[in-house]
Amino acid sequence: MRIMVVGASGNIGSAVVAELAQRHDVVAAGRSSGDVRLDMADADSIRSAYAEAGPLDAVVCCAGKVNFAPLAEMDADAYAVGLGNKLMGQVNLVLLGRDHVADGGSFTLTTGVLDRRPILTGSSASMVNGAVNGFVMSAAIDMPRDQRINVLSPGLLVESVPAIGHLFPGFDPVPAARVAKAYAEAVEGSMTGQVIHVDAED
Amino acid sequence: MRIMVVGASGNIGSAVVAELAQRHDVVAAGRSSGDVRLDMADADSIRSAYAEAGPLDAVVCCAGKVNFAPLAEMDADAYAVGLGNKLMGQVNLVLLGRDHVADGGSFTLTTGVLDRRPILTGSSASMVNGAVNGFVMSAAIDMPRDQRINVLSPGLLVESVPAIGHLFPGFDPVPAARVAKAYAEAVEGSMTGQVIHVDAED
Repeated sequence: MRIMVVGASGNIGSAVVAELAQRHDVVAAGRSSGDVRLDMADADSIRSAYAEAGPLDAVVCCAGKVNFAPLAEMDADAYAVGLGNKLMGQVNLVLLGRDHVADGGSFTLTTGVLDRRPILTGSSASMVNGAVNGFVMSAAIDMPRDQRINVLSPGLLVESVPAIGHLFPGFDPVPAARVAKAYAEAVEGSMTGQVIHVDAED
Repeated sequence: MRIMVVGASGNIGSAVVAELAQRHDVVAAGRSSGDVRLDMADADSIRSAYAEAGPLDAVVCCAGKVNFAPLAEMDADAYAVGLGNKLMGQVNLVLLGRDHVADGGSFTLTTGVLDRRPILTGSSASMVNGAVNGFVMSAAIDMPRDQRINVLSPGLLVESVPAIGHLFPGFDPVPAARVAKAYAEAVEGSMTGQVIHVDAED
């Protein structure tokens, strides 16, 4: 398969590329690196990336920005960052990519553990993750040409602990390499409309 | 308690007003009727409504618009309607209302059954409902002055069947009066961070 991985240089994305490149042709996409450049917040950039990437069998998105701050410091503009980037960036990857992905191809998006467990500073992430999960559940029943769509919701990554582990007290982290296998399951398998949790104890 | 009910003239809101007014002082808010006027899509309108309503012990929101259309007809602008109205309207009611609601007061928001069961034409509703549920779960752990926040997610209303029942094939509808009792449970009880499902078989 020819698979575009968006956010290919991140902690999740690099593990996903390492996993999928063993068996597939990977087109790495990123805001500042990769085979094609793609800014999640910019629909025109997504259109250009699809045109440049050529025909695809699958799209995996491991990118998306949200603000982290206490509720008292959040306002509508702060929530707009996550809505415009991690939510509508991923939704636009689907809406603008449907015609570029083969019959029976797939989209695999990313949310995360804050969809089911709250942390202080995480209200935007919980909001956006809930939105993406809901979109995927519903879009799956109306995708064209037997295309599938799923979403990975991994726990805190082992690789993210040095930078953000202090925000996730007591969370048991999961290695990115194990999370990457769940992306492969979504891409290479037959499921659709699923929110796939990958937690340390699974 | 002094309780502002937003969307007081709708199918849910009128049942909630009938239930709460038996024991409380209700301030009815709506876009085109009620004691105070409030447009969910306009933060300034929400600020004005709070100023006009005066001190409150609780806010209940039964309002919020989303677009219903097949996925093939949805684009970013169509999703923006639900994000700006049912999602950020409800979030702004919380963010802008915190200082107007008493210590230990509460916010009760509304999503719906499309957060857990998809229908064709419902991808925006499923997105927005997931977002509101996620926001409520997370905001609950960081609300000021012992304020609580919950969200009602009712099934298809009996009262909505004539207008939209054809979009919900096989759904077993629930009477608005029974849904209204669950709003009272959220307002008068002690729970916080809960997504309260009200389905026909409960």
